[in-house]
Amino acid sequence: MNRFSPALVRPTRPLSPALVDRFAAVVGERYAVTDQADLAPFLVEDRGLYQGRSALLLRPGTTAEVAAICRIAHETETAIVPQGGNSGLVGGQTAHHGEVILSLRRLDRVREVDVTSNTMICEAGVVLAMAQAAAVEADRLFPLSLGAEGTCTIGGNLATNAGGTAAVRYGTARDLCLGLEVVMPDGSILNGLTKLKKDNTGYDLRDLFIGSEGTLGVITAAVLKLFPKPRSVETALIGLDSPRAALDLLTLMQATAGPSLTSFELIAAICFDFVVRHGPGLRLPMTSSHPWYVLAELSSTRDSETGTMEAVLANSIELGLIGDAVIASSDAQRRQLWTIREMISEVQKHEGGSIKHDISVPISAVPDFIEAANAEVARLIPAARPVIFGHLGDGNLHYNVSQPAARDPKLAKETFLARWYDVQHRVHEIVGEFGGSISAEHGVGVMKRDELNRVKDPTAMTLMRSLKNAIDPLNILNPGKVV
Amino acid sequence: MNRFSPALVRPTRPLSPALVDRFAAVVGERYAVTDQADLAPFLVEDRGLYQGRSALLLRPGTTAEVAAICRIAHETETAIVPQGGNSGLVGGQTAHHGEVILSLRRLDRVREVDVTSNTMICEAGVVLAMAQAAAVEADRLFPLSLGAEGTCTIGGNLATNAGGTAAVRYGTARDLCLGLEVVMPDGSILNGLTKLKKDNTGYDLRDLFIGSEGTLGVITAAVLKLFPKPRSVETALIGLDSPRAALDLLTLMQATAGPSLTSFELIAAICFDFVVRHGPGLRLPMTSSHPWYVLAELSSTRDSETGTMEAVLANSIELGLIGDAVIASSDAQRRQLWTIREMISEVQKHEGGSIKHDISVPISAVPDFIEAANAEVARLIPAARPVIFGHLGDGNLHYNVSQPAARDPKLAKETFLARWYDVQHRVHEIVGEFGGSISAEHGVGVMKRDELNRVKDPTAMTLMRSLKNAIDPLNILNPGKVV
Repeated sequence: MNRFSPALVRPTRPLSPALVDRFAAVVGERYAVTDQADLAPFLVEDRGLYQGRSALLLRPGTTAEVAAICRIAHETETAIVPQGGNSGLVGGQTAHHGEVILSLRRLDRVREVDVTSNTMICEAGVVLAMAQAAAVEADRLFPLSLGAEGTCTIGGNLATNAGGTAAVRYGTARDLCLGLEVVMPDGSILNGLTKLKKDNTGYDLRDLFIGSEGTLGVITAAVLKLFPKPRSVETALIGLDSPRAALDLLTLMQATAGPSLTSFELIAAICFDFVVRHGPGLRLPMTSSHPWYVLAELSSTRDSETGTMEAVLANSIELGLIGDAVIASSDAQRRQLWTIREMISEVQKHEGGSIKHDISVPISAVPDFIEAANAEVARLIPAARPVIFGHLGDGNLHYNVSQPAARDPKLAKETFLARWYDVQHRVHEIVGEFGGSISAEHGVGVMKRDELNRVKDPTAMTLMRSLKNAIDPLNILNPGKVV
Repeated sequence: MNRFSPALVRPTRPLSPALVDRFAAVVGERYAVTDQADLAPFLVEDRGLYQGRSALLLRPGTTAEVAAICRIAHETETAIVPQGGNSGLVGGQTAHHGEVILSLRRLDRVREVDVTSNTMICEAGVVLAMAQAAAVEADRLFPLSLGAEGTCTIGGNLATNAGGTAAVRYGTARDLCLGLEVVMPDGSILNGLTKLKKDNTGYDLRDLFIGSEGTLGVITAAVLKLFPKPRSVETALIGLDSPRAALDLLTLMQATAGPSLTSFELIAAICFDFVVRHGPGLRLPMTSSHPWYVLAELSSTRDSETGTMEAVLANSIELGLIGDAVIASSDAQRRQLWTIREMISEVQKHEGGSIKHDISVPISAVPDFIEAANAEVARLIPAARPVIFGHLGDGNLHYNVSQPAARDPKLAKETFLARWYDVQHRVHEIVGEFGGSISAEHGVGVMKRDELNRVKDPTAMTLMRSLKNAIDPLNILNPGKVV
């Protein structure tokens, strides 16, 4: 499935023993891994979609060590792949061509929490769940939240500009970061760990590195924004007829609840069918059936701000926007709703092959996009099953397509997955027609690099290449990814 | 006062009549201005601090015309200064060396308002107040708000990453923009007018141009974010003892009101003394006097969400945080409070010379910064009067210093302003000690270009220069500004 042109990547020369020793001297023998068994977990990814190869894994413990590694790499023109929690979905963290792997996981200190400035300084290797916990400990919220939060790292979150379920209110990783410390490809250190909310002293260097997937610099630490911790949360599961009704509900909720709306997830009925069929004893806490569902959450810093959800939903029923709704009446019920939502990706594999898309379109175009994409998928593979869910508040859909139900699922899977690029190509074309993006939150990596060339504005591509060339002229950092 | 090295700027050759004709042919005779009387308003700025010179002003009406102008400039290596509302405070919009002025004001269409996606597409020349009005007409809020909103333009707001009084809640211009259309220095057009909330297809090009002050590309249009219009607003003027008390009040308000806190302005008593003395019949609506004041505003999308301000203030009085407070009981009273706040800059000139700083420090460092800077100013010029006001919620202070009260104000002004660089130098050093920024919201322009070299991280400066060189290798766009 991964079709990318290795020609664009410098053939990696075997590392000389002397060079391995030089690198090892920086981090110490213990943290310079050459044993293939020890290296293995850093070479594969969860789905088994990509298999990397490498002769050397370096595990620096400080920014200075990262800088020293980059200096040597620069001098010797050795390619490096930076890696965080290794949970990326587009092959961006994989050493496809024998590059040296630079794991940032040992940079795992929360350097500071400043409750007055509402900031927290995390090193790149801090696991997202640990960053969230550090915020909670200071009676604050770090709102980035996503499925992989138990393994993914802050460095990886920033390098890929991670999104997640709270982005409708708090934005993506980019919006949650004030400053960065970055090691440049030549080993110089960019000291940008600013806590400032406003700083107009020149070009915005921070956002250049956020989302650059390790191709422009190695993020070693970041100043993150903290928010007041919500005191009251209202979570509802809502059944409705169509994506258009969901969109009307979104508009109504935003007008009523404003920034209290912290999640708004659209889910097609088939997703819950799969969860009920394959999930561990999970049931939908609603007796009626609906073609579509919304999982919505309101959060407020005020202790007793409840009742808004009920008022909005009562209003929506009156307006004929929604069919039925349940509001979680306890934290356990709330967690159950989120568990059902978060199981969707996982249970889908029990239904055979799935052709996945991580797309976004303007919010107002979501209903038309779904209609157009479903029609095209039905034309290409008549019995294929669109399994649609995503963050409607951001116009971001995981537009996945499961294989037709079949007598011989294994054979059907192969036949189905052979159509991956046909389907993806057409879905991405439709995304383009609506002014959308073929990678809303997962990034480009190697998976979408060639596709990007086809769909992205040519001036943007030229500009991106000239940026890469200006900042990493020797093409040392994560070569062959993104551009 | 403006000390910058013209040596860094290519000496501008006189424009040949043939070249003037080529440029004029793009926009039409009517919009190619060579008459010096007609050019004059585009050469001066409000304070008379900078005086530009130019033989040609071009006023294109379309993006295609802007592109054609840049193509000719690129081919002939002719320097260009892009200009919006000409209200910038750092000389960034001024043609200091006879460059061709490219005024974007005729690109003044609101191309689209999409209430479902909550987006609006404005051309660069749309005046900020017009953009706000277009949002209101669609029952939405475009929250960027600042003193010059009646003249400044969206293009200029984005090119300088404008801040203003609502940034504590909504962020700066950068945070309010989803996509850009930009004409590159060679005349190619970057089509980035995306409405997408999430788009991870490569490097963040948008934020590269936002805040680049016209040195990397010419912004011709932007997709702006809209928000639900607030239905209830509570505005209070609060008297208190110290910046530290104000900071405690900020923390309390954020914890209680969360995102409802939309403004939090810190104001030293002397600012109001000046307003009362020189403003047109303005009085402070509070009988007691305090060394410091806060102007705070809570906004909510809920119709009848009032009472929060009163509750927080009652709590603050109990805690001994504040001395006295008045809550505006009508929209007229609310506007009066904001008028008093917005008069501060203007009335200051009646008190003689003023050495101005637009700085930011981490929010938690504001009290210590004020103490340190005041002590240093007192040491340098014993009777000088710090006139401090700013956006405490962003750590952004307009740390201005008025000359000592004197018998012969004119003589005193000259003596005082002769110390501009002494004072600024030391204040900026103190800013640096607190990890702050010497330009929080006004930008660099020419005013702070040389100073930037001194205070900014050397790796950042190198990177900024290599970006400028990669994107505008002929140094055509706004040469001599920022880098």
